[in-house]
Amino acid sequence: MNKPIKTATIIGGGVIGAGWLARFIENGIDVKVYDPDPESARKINAVLENSRAAYAKLTMAPRLSEGSITHCTSLAEAVGNAELIVESVPERLDIKQSVYAEVEQAAPNNALIVSSTSGIMPSDLQAKLQHPERMLVVHPFNPVYLLPVVEVVGGKKTSQESIDRAMAIYAAIGMKPVHIKKEIEAFVADRLLEAVWREALWLVSDGIATTQEVDDIMRFGFGLRWAQMGLFETYRVAGGEAGMRHFMAQFGPCLTWPWTKLMDVPEFTDELVDLIATQSDEQSGMHSIRELERIRDNNLVGIMQALRSNDWGAGKVLAAYEKAQYDAAAGVVESADDDLSQPIKTVQRTVPTDWTDYNNHMNESRYLQVSSEATDAFMRLIGVDSEYVEQGGSYFTVETHIRHLDEVRAQEPIAVTTQVLKGEGKKLHLFNRISHADGRLLATVEHLLIHVSLETRSSSLPGEAVAAKLAEIAGLHKGLAVPEGAGRAVNS
Amino acid sequence: MNKPIKTATIIGGGVIGAGWLARFIENGIDVKVYDPDPESARKINAVLENSRAAYAKLTMAPRLSEGSITHCTSLAEAVGNAELIVESVPERLDIKQSVYAEVEQAAPNNALIVSSTSGIMPSDLQAKLQHPERMLVVHPFNPVYLLPVVEVVGGKKTSQESIDRAMAIYAAIGMKPVHIKKEIEAFVADRLLEAVWREALWLVSDGIATTQEVDDIMRFGFGLRWAQMGLFETYRVAGGEAGMRHFMAQFGPCLTWPWTKLMDVPEFTDELVDLIATQSDEQSGMHSIRELERIRDNNLVGIMQALRSNDWGAGKVLAAYEKAQYDAAAGVVESADDDLSQPIKTVQRTVPTDWTDYNNHMNESRYLQVSSEATDAFMRLIGVDSEYVEQGGSYFTVETHIRHLDEVRAQEPIAVTTQVLKGEGKKLHLFNRISHADGRLLATVEHLLIHVSLETRSSSLPGEAVAAKLAEIAGLHKGLAVPEGAGRAVNS
Repeated sequence: MNKPIKTATIIGGGVIGAGWLARFIENGIDVKVYDPDPESARKINAVLENSRAAYAKLTMAPRLSEGSITHCTSLAEAVGNAELIVESVPERLDIKQSVYAEVEQAAPNNALIVSSTSGIMPSDLQAKLQHPERMLVVHPFNPVYLLPVVEVVGGKKTSQESIDRAMAIYAAIGMKPVHIKKEIEAFVADRLLEAVWREALWLVSDGIATTQEVDDIMRFGFGLRWAQMGLFETYRVAGGEAGMRHFMAQFGPCLTWPWTKLMDVPEFTDELVDLIATQSDEQSGMHSIRELERIRDNNLVGIMQALRSNDWGAGKVLAAYEKAQYDAAAGVVESADDDLSQPIKTVQRTVPTDWTDYNNHMNESRYLQVSSEATDAFMRLIGVDSEYVEQGGSYFTVETHIRHLDEVRAQEPIAVTTQVLKGEGKKLHLFNRISHADGRLLATVEHLLIHVSLETRSSSLPGEAVAAKLAEIAGLHKGLAVPEGAGRAVNS
Repeated sequence: MNKPIKTATIIGGGVIGAGWLARFIENGIDVKVYDPDPESARKINAVLENSRAAYAKLTMAPRLSEGSITHCTSLAEAVGNAELIVESVPERLDIKQSVYAEVEQAAPNNALIVSSTSGIMPSDLQAKLQHPERMLVVHPFNPVYLLPVVEVVGGKKTSQESIDRAMAIYAAIGMKPVHIKKEIEAFVADRLLEAVWREALWLVSDGIATTQEVDDIMRFGFGLRWAQMGLFETYRVAGGEAGMRHFMAQFGPCLTWPWTKLMDVPEFTDELVDLIATQSDEQSGMHSIRELERIRDNNLVGIMQALRSNDWGAGKVLAAYEKAQYDAAAGVVESADDDLSQPIKTVQRTVPTDWTDYNNHMNESRYLQVSSEATDAFMRLIGVDSEYVEQGGSYFTVETHIRHLDEVRAQEPIAVTTQVLKGEGKKLHLFNRISHADGRLLATVEHLLIHVSLETRSSSLPGEAVAAKLAEIAGLHKGLAVPEGAGRAVNS
């Protein structure tokens, strides 16, 4: 599949480092991690519990099996053969520089070194490096395994090639890298965040609003807007048909009104900390942090999926990522498929944790989902891929018969084979067998599909190449026995 | 239903006034509108086109028919018998005060007068009123017909009763009123927005980032977070198990770093306006403002629906609003459901945004999921509920046959009826029909289920009460015709 690198090294396993680790292994990348904290493995596992739950819901695209995790006992071991070294240690220039000095002693000279810093300038970070051209900032946002954006910022000595490599790597693992072309402290996101943070502290400190009220005004208001359009595009729309110029003319002059007190930093007293912390407890104390993380992740997944069906913003990034996985999977199936004369291995996966029901086994509807995935894999094999669909052809399922023969539980490995019973003209008659890796036949699923024109939404003949490939496989499968259960009706 | 007022008067039919009008009529409230602009009716109709499209997707809850719209030729006519007068005229204190003077001459003394101002203090607005106790600010956000939040701000002379009335009215029309207890200019939201706006202008003005890059960093990053949790709750989670106090200790001191330049207002030159407007054209110029509005609305609807399925934030407000509508309509639904002699209404829902596939219709596996939900609803009806399952009995599906007859897309309303073909001994043979609310039959799904002991995982007889209830329904359904498609096999 789309694996831009095979391995990555994580230095520092805090919330950000562990979030990077999670995103990498979800993309099939093997990770070496170094963190001297004896609690590190436990903390990383807590993040992985969240990220696995989130990915099980986020996408059904075929994905590589999880990358491996190696906990290293020295930094040298972790960076030995590194391709990409991600530093997420505390935000102090001296600490980071001493880490880089150690890294350069043990790592290959061409390994990319990226810092997760949220504010320190890359020119300062790379100042003492022997090979500074491969060093840059890639600033992510919590939760790193879900939020798409990263700020990619090079220093004075960073090479264009390093920037290009980073942009390609992060795009390939489902992210939205934004190249900040001029480095400043705190880059772009944290400039904006700091502005809001200061003003919010003033509002609470002055007793204008509680933390709950500030948060509500955000999440029931402009936060909803900004999940899909930024400030400028939102205001362009607000300007009406006259657009941005009108908006600027109308609201520009307000900027000089002496409203916000942003540079006048609230004094950071114990009283202010108490006030904020107490209000925050009242607001959110009914949930543990772990619960809040799960709630947040489920919400982010839901929002990104909603935007995906509108092909917009973060949903568009997710859709592109999934398309890449599907396209790559098409190749895998084909090459793995040396023998087309036997039922074709179309799916291999484990049962996600949220696929079970109150009977404590995989829910019946998931059998059809798995079988549908198998049919999609078969489609890609005969050339019904995203390009073919874009050109207006596809197959629609018109009839399905399922026999449930055995149970399967969460996290167990399953596989599907696909046999062609008939494949000519507009018709495609498939027989999928879902088996457990231990050999038990779990279900058979028989599908009748009809080729359609996506324009007229009515039946039509497939394209020549598709018809030819299908005829080839159908011919090979003619010799196979008609499977037990085919052509059967539900009968009590 | 939940109609907190019968009529509302809108003074000023710009984007905000028209947005208010749309929200009111969607809630069955009759609206009188006064705007001397001869183009007013046309502009209002443009907003109504958007709001109607949005509400058609937003909720399937039973709703009152649209309120009426009366375009008045004088302010006196518009406020004559008013209950609620909403002022959305230009943001100048003298203009607003002269409107209120006219209003008081013609309106009842107890009509609530609310201003949509985004910044002027209510104490100033009400200063010259004869009955200032009924005057307050209710500050909404664009698009007013979709975004839930309003800042409710009283002035020195506003009565508690007026605040209470406003809070009740806006909650009943699906909004999230937040009472700002201490009045300041620009209230809470616009303080935060101004902070971001200023910093963003600096970033563009200094050439650090383009409008597109600033927007991308927002909508692929913290904007997604703020659609569901505000700043304080997000940072509480970032603080980890130690929560807010830890976060404050860690990040508080950074506040004194001299990063942001917020009070140092960028000079509002023609060059700056040109720069922003030109970049905005490059970023969004491929869409008309109307297109952008539709995109925005579809995204907001999708996001709120995603949050609704997690029962959180703006989705929770939507769910409560819908529940109120359903409760108000309950009498009808319940009595319709009581007739067990007909196929039983087991599911009523809209198609979630993430249920569609590359063919741009509900994925085949979701048909089985919906049918499975219908079967579960039937189970609960015959007493196979969570208590019964805990005691070790359940039904497992052993065979299913699906006919896909028509397509359905995201956000469309569907319903399922369940007919019992056989229900005796260990066997349960069901026939589910999935229909679109417009009457089209989308699919039929035939299920054979076997009663099992969850201990032995093998077949067993159901408990007496379940068997009796099932026998009752099966007896009633014996008289129904065998449905078309029952007992059918897949055959090419």
